[in-house]
Amino acid sequence: MERRELRLKAILFIADGMADRPVKELNWKTPLEAARKPSLNQTAKAGICGMIDPIAPGTPPGSDAATLALLGYDALKVYSGRGALEALGSGVKVQPADVAFRCNFATVNQKSVVIDRRAGRISNEDATKLTRSLSEVKLTKSLNADFLFKNTIQHRAVLTLHGSKLSTAVSDSDPEKAGEKVLQVKPLDNSSEAKLTAKILNELLLGFHEVLKNHPVNEERVKRGLPPANIVLCRGAGTTPNLKPLSEIYGIKTACIAAAPLVRGICKVAGMKLVYVKGATGTPQTDYMAKARAAVQALKSCDLVLLHVKAADVASHDGKTKQKIDVIESIDRMAGYLLDKVGLDSTYLAVTADHTTATATGNHEGDPVPIAIAGPYVRCDDVEKYDERSCAKGGLGRIRGLDLMPILMNFLGKTKKFGA
Amino acid sequence: MERRELRLKAILFIADGMADRPVKELNWKTPLEAARKPSLNQTAKAGICGMIDPIAPGTPPGSDAATLALLGYDALKVYSGRGALEALGSGVKVQPADVAFRCNFATVNQKSVVIDRRAGRISNEDATKLTRSLSEVKLTKSLNADFLFKNTIQHRAVLTLHGSKLSTAVSDSDPEKAGEKVLQVKPLDNSSEAKLTAKILNELLLGFHEVLKNHPVNEERVKRGLPPANIVLCRGAGTTPNLKPLSEIYGIKTACIAAAPLVRGICKVAGMKLVYVKGATGTPQTDYMAKARAAVQALKSCDLVLLHVKAADVASHDGKTKQKIDVIESIDRMAGYLLDKVGLDSTYLAVTADHTTATATGNHEGDPVPIAIAGPYVRCDDVEKYDERSCAKGGLGRIRGLDLMPILMNFLGKTKKFGA
Repeated sequence: MERRELRLKAILFIADGMADRPVKELNWKTPLEAARKPSLNQTAKAGICGMIDPIAPGTPPGSDAATLALLGYDALKVYSGRGALEALGSGVKVQPADVAFRCNFATVNQKSVVIDRRAGRISNEDATKLTRSLSEVKLTKSLNADFLFKNTIQHRAVLTLHGSKLSTAVSDSDPEKAGEKVLQVKPLDNSSEAKLTAKILNELLLGFHEVLKNHPVNEERVKRGLPPANIVLCRGAGTTPNLKPLSEIYGIKTACIAAAPLVRGICKVAGMKLVYVKGATGTPQTDYMAKARAAVQALKSCDLVLLHVKAADVASHDGKTKQKIDVIESIDRMAGYLLDKVGLDSTYLAVTADHTTATATGNHEGDPVPIAIAGPYVRCDDVEKYDERSCAKGGLGRIRGLDLMPILMNFLGKTKKFGA
Repeated sequence: MERRELRLKAILFIADGMADRPVKELNWKTPLEAARKPSLNQTAKAGICGMIDPIAPGTPPGSDAATLALLGYDALKVYSGRGALEALGSGVKVQPADVAFRCNFATVNQKSVVIDRRAGRISNEDATKLTRSLSEVKLTKSLNADFLFKNTIQHRAVLTLHGSKLSTAVSDSDPEKAGEKVLQVKPLDNSSEAKLTAKILNELLLGFHEVLKNHPVNEERVKRGLPPANIVLCRGAGTTPNLKPLSEIYGIKTACIAAAPLVRGICKVAGMKLVYVKGATGTPQTDYMAKARAAVQALKSCDLVLLHVKAADVASHDGKTKQKIDVIESIDRMAGYLLDKVGLDSTYLAVTADHTTATATGNHEGDPVPIAIAGPYVRCDDVEKYDERSCAKGGLGRIRGLDLMPILMNFLGKTKKFGA
C-alpha cells in the first residue's frame, strides 16, 4: 500500500488565456509552440497530456465559468454571473440575496455618449474620493434596498445591491464601447424581482451621475486636462454561487495564489485560503517568481494549491504576440521552479489554461486547451512538448473542464467510489 | 447489404480489475504491459481500441456500478445498492419492495469487538447448519416484516428483508475491519422507512447473535480450535434495480458466463441467461478455459455473451503483482481460444476491464480502462498492443462505460435510428 504512506499533493497551475490558435506572424505556430519553454515541456514529457474543453467543444468560456469548471464545478449549473465573484474577490461581503455588479468609472458627454470607458484610467486616489461621495446617495425608501459601492484598481469598482427581492436578470448599463450611449438597465424577464432590480439600479446610477457631474474632483480633473469620471457604468449582474467547498467534497486543504479579483472570488466561494503575494498584480508586469515561491510555500500546509497567472490573457486581448511569448517564457520559469522544488514522487503538477484567447481576434475562443499532469503513478505518454497540438496526442484524450478536478483528486486518493 | 445476410454476434469479455497503474517493481510498466499476452495484442491489432471511463473521469467505480454501465445502463440513475444484486446472483428471489444485504459470518469477543470477519473462513457445511437455526428467529409481529437468510460460499451470506415499508437508507453493521466493534445499524435519512428498516435489522442481528453464541456447531468449533461464527455482519443495503432487459432494448438473446454472484445478479436483472460452468470459482484458481469454452458454446444460441473473470481484481486487491500477471496470461489464453473458435468475420470480440484496480494501493481507482473491439467492419487503428497506454492511442478515443453497449449493438445492427 505504497500510496497510503505518502501524503500526495497537487499544484493546479492555470495560465489564463495561454492557449491560442496558429498565428501568421509566427509562421503559423501558436505562441506556446513558438516560445522557449523547457520546463513546460519537461512537465509534458514526465506526465500524461490531453486537451480540455473548459465548458464544451466550441463554447468560448468566460474566465469565471472556466475557472469554476477547472475546480470541478458544473459551471452550466452553478454559474450565477460575474459581478458577485468580482466583488467577493475585492474583499466585499456578498450575502446570498445580494446582487453585485462590475463597475467602471467612465466619462460621458452631455448626450450620455461614452467618451472614455475608463475615465482616463483614473487614479486610485481620485476614485477613492469620488467613491466616498457616492456612499451618500440615498435610494427611495419604498424600494427597500441598500447598496455598497467600492472602487478597486483605477477605474474599476464593484457595486453590491442588498435587498430581499432582487434578481440578476437585468441588462447592463455599460455599452462596452466608446461612442455609444449609456444604456438604460432593463429587466430581462417578467419577474417582479427583475423589474425592481432594474428600477433600483437606474435610480442609483442616476443618483451617482448627479453627484459626479459637478464633483470638485472632476472639476479639478478637467482643469488638469483629464477626462472627468462623471458616470458609473455597470455590468455582469451576479449572485454568490451556491458551491460546496472543496474541503467538503474531497476532504482536502486548499489555497489560492491569484491576483485577479475574479479568481480570488471564485476560490473564496470554493472555501480556499486566499494567499496574498506582494508584487502579484494580475498584469504582464506581475512578480512571477514570487507567485511560484508562494505556491511551493502554501503546498506545505495544503493538499491542493491553485496557482493562477493572468498575464497571458492580457497580452492576448491586446493582440501582443511578442508579449504573449514573453509571458509564456516567464510562466515556464515558474514551472521550472515548481519542478525544482516539489518532488514528482509525491506531488502532482497539472498545467493548463482556462481558455484559448486568440491573439489574432483578441477574443476568448472555444478551441480546447492543453493539459499536462506529471506526478506519481500517472500513465505517462509519448508527448514531449507542452502545446496545443502536441498535447492533443496525449493519453488523457479530450476531457471536459469539470473532469479535471476528479482526475486530480483520484490521483490524490480523495475521490469517493461510486458503487461497492 | 452484406451485413444483413450474416447473423452478427458479440462476446463482451470483462476482466475485473485488470487495468492498473505503472508499478515500480515492474520498472513502471503496468501488469498488462508486463504480461505476455499475444492474443489480447492480436485483438487490439485486429480491432479498434480506446479508453473507457466506466462511470466518469476520476471516479473509482464499484464493480456493481461499472458492470451496470458496461451493459449500457446509466449507473448514476439506476444503481440501487449492492445487496440485492448479490442476493439475486446467489439464487435468492428479491421482490421490488425487498431490501437485501451482503452478510458475513464473523467472530466477536464478549465486548462485541470483531476478532475475525470471516469466522476462520467457516466451511460451507458449518455455515449451512447455522443458517438452518437462524431461520427460526422470529421478528416482533408489529414490525410487519419477514426475512430470508442464505449462506453462499464459506462465510458469505445474503439477507433479504421482506416488507412493504422498507428503505435502503440504513448503515452497515459490519465495521469492515477486525479490531473494531460491531456497529449499530442506523437510519441514513429521516424517513419512517429508514427508521423501521434499521429497527428490524438491529432486532434481527441481535436475534441471530443469541442463536449463534451458544450454538452446538460453534461449541464444536471452539473445541476444534476454530473461531466460532457467533455473529452475522451485514452491509450494502440494496433493492433490485429497475432495468429494462437487454432483450427488450436491443431485441437480442444474451447469456452470462460469470462466477461472481454480483455479476450474475446484475445479468439476471438485465434478463440474461445465467450459464453454470463447473470449475468457475471467481478466484485466481478458477477454470479459465472452461469459461472460455462455455462462452463459445453459449454464443451458438445467443447474440451477446458476457464473459466475466474475477481473478485479476482479487490479485490486485491483495497487491500480488506476480499473480496478477499470471492471471492476465490465463485471460490471454482464453482470448486465444475465443479468437480461434469464433470467426472475426461474423463475431465481435470486445475486451475490457470494469475498473482499474491498482496493485500499489489495493484499491479501485478512477483511471480509465482499455477497450479493444475486433470484428467485421470495425475501423481498425494502429494500436498493436492491448494495454492502458497503447489503447489510449486508439481510434475509439475516450468513451464512457455506458457508451460501450450501444457501440457493440451498432456493430450488430441492433441500435435504433434516432431521427428519421
